[in-house]
Amino acid sequence: MKTHCNVELLSVGNELLLGNTVNTNASWIAAHVTSLGGHVTRITTVADNLDEISAAVREALRRRPTILITTGGIGPTFDDMTLDGVARALKLRVRPDKTAIAMVHEHYARRFPNRRVQLTKPRLKMASIPVGGTAVRNPVGTAPGVRLVASGVELYCLPGVPVEAKAIFRDSVSRSILSRTAGSVFDERWVHVRGIMESSLAPMIDQVMKRYPDVYIKSHPRGVEAGGRPHIELHFSIHSSDKKRAERSLLAAMKSLLDKLTDAGAKIGPTN
Amino acid sequence: MKTHCNVELLSVGNELLLGNTVNTNASWIAAHVTSLGGHVTRITTVADNLDEISAAVREALRRRPTILITTGGIGPTFDDMTLDGVARALKLRVRPDKTAIAMVHEHYARRFPNRRVQLTKPRLKMASIPVGGTAVRNPVGTAPGVRLVASGVELYCLPGVPVEAKAIFRDSVSRSILSRTAGSVFDERWVHVRGIMESSLAPMIDQVMKRYPDVYIKSHPRGVEAGGRPHIELHFSIHSSDKKRAERSLLAAMKSLLDKLTDAGAKIGPTN
Repeated sequence: MKTHCNVELLSVGNELLLGNTVNTNASWIAAHVTSLGGHVTRITTVADNLDEISAAVREALRRRPTILITTGGIGPTFDDMTLDGVARALKLRVRPDKTAIAMVHEHYARRFPNRRVQLTKPRLKMASIPVGGTAVRNPVGTAPGVRLVASGVELYCLPGVPVEAKAIFRDSVSRSILSRTAGSVFDERWVHVRGIMESSLAPMIDQVMKRYPDVYIKSHPRGVEAGGRPHIELHFSIHSSDKKRAERSLLAAMKSLLDKLTDAGAKIGPTN
Repeated sequence: MKTHCNVELLSVGNELLLGNTVNTNASWIAAHVTSLGGHVTRITTVADNLDEISAAVREALRRRPTILITTGGIGPTFDDMTLDGVARALKLRVRPDKTAIAMVHEHYARRFPNRRVQLTKPRLKMASIPVGGTAVRNPVGTAPGVRLVASGVELYCLPGVPVEAKAIFRDSVSRSILSRTAGSVFDERWVHVRGIMESSLAPMIDQVMKRYPDVYIKSHPRGVEAGGRPHIELHFSIHSSDKKRAERSLLAAMKSLLDKLTDAGAKIGPTN
């Protein structure tokens, strides 16, 4: 049985658009979705702006991914607007949630065992989620994540702090992906090739991919070394429902291409 | 005179969606656009897929940024589809371009001075651009960039190889941004704060931003240190047409917030 799990990521945060922060949350989540057998189909980054967020959420839902994961914008400050943006996109109200309040309360009580925890406005904000959503436990931070099903899409809102986003992904989102991709495998290999130009390599990749249509081959130029020798990294990957067959196809395609490269005088191997 | 230069980035490449590659091109370009006085309004990442690319280009043009910059997918291999995607979005044909052919030719002739350069199919592919576009010199690689004006949007297609994307940005795109933002300044400061929780900080930021509406303040939680002391990075930024006034506002807003923080017992400073 073929299983599909298409995942879109929506990263929210001015710091990403100012270029102050590299979007490592997106690449970390993408790598984990891939290794769980899912496909990341698009990554969108928008500002901490209600219109931008709600527009991006509506657009993403219209593309009907299996899962939409947002990161960022669910903390206590005025510019944490992701849940308001999601709510606006779905025409929902945002209101304090009992479970979320208990989670926020528990977090502060654990951290300050000798103080009486006050549920100030910023803290209540972190416990307010779109109606119909479920608070998802944040094992390492204050703001709970949110899970919501809308237009048949499973939506997760995670914090932007990387350690918190990763923890909630591992605890909650990964299970949902796995339940949909059970039995599906992703396999990949990297090979370094030296002494052949990408323009000469291109027709060889074409030939091998025609013969092994389930294997995806991509060349990444890594620059030119001393003596004008080009250095290219080749990436072979496959999605399949059969682990053994996947590996067999992958290795056969690799052998076929590497034979052609050796015949053309290229040098294969991870080191110089 | 107020000047605007809204820039969208479109990153093309399966490796970004597989999570194999962190999108440092996007953050590098975003940081440079910002420092040149422009605003990056959205970053989109899609796969090496004709439908995905052309849909993303159409969507971006509909949002009417001043400039749209694509990276990736303009090399010689079968999966380099960005120019075809752009052409499809704009209903243009792609065809070999005289200037681009000369650039590709010159690149190989420079690299292999003793060989006759053959314009093979993959090399001709790198010299083929959408009709109406202009080839932009790639000072460090083979595939030229492309500049095209469509629906009033200035579109630049850059290679995905970071050193090439950066070189073409520096040589060509930056000038276009500067010509639109001349006189506009972006200024920013970072401050480390320890010993106060983000939920307690939030209302102080609100107050200061109300008083200094042109200054944008964002808090970035950086974790909890020994003894349960929270560590937060504060980012102050301003876009303005007046360098002196910008700095004055920025420093006044910083002083106002840091005074409040000190009163609340927080520790200010870059070091521990």
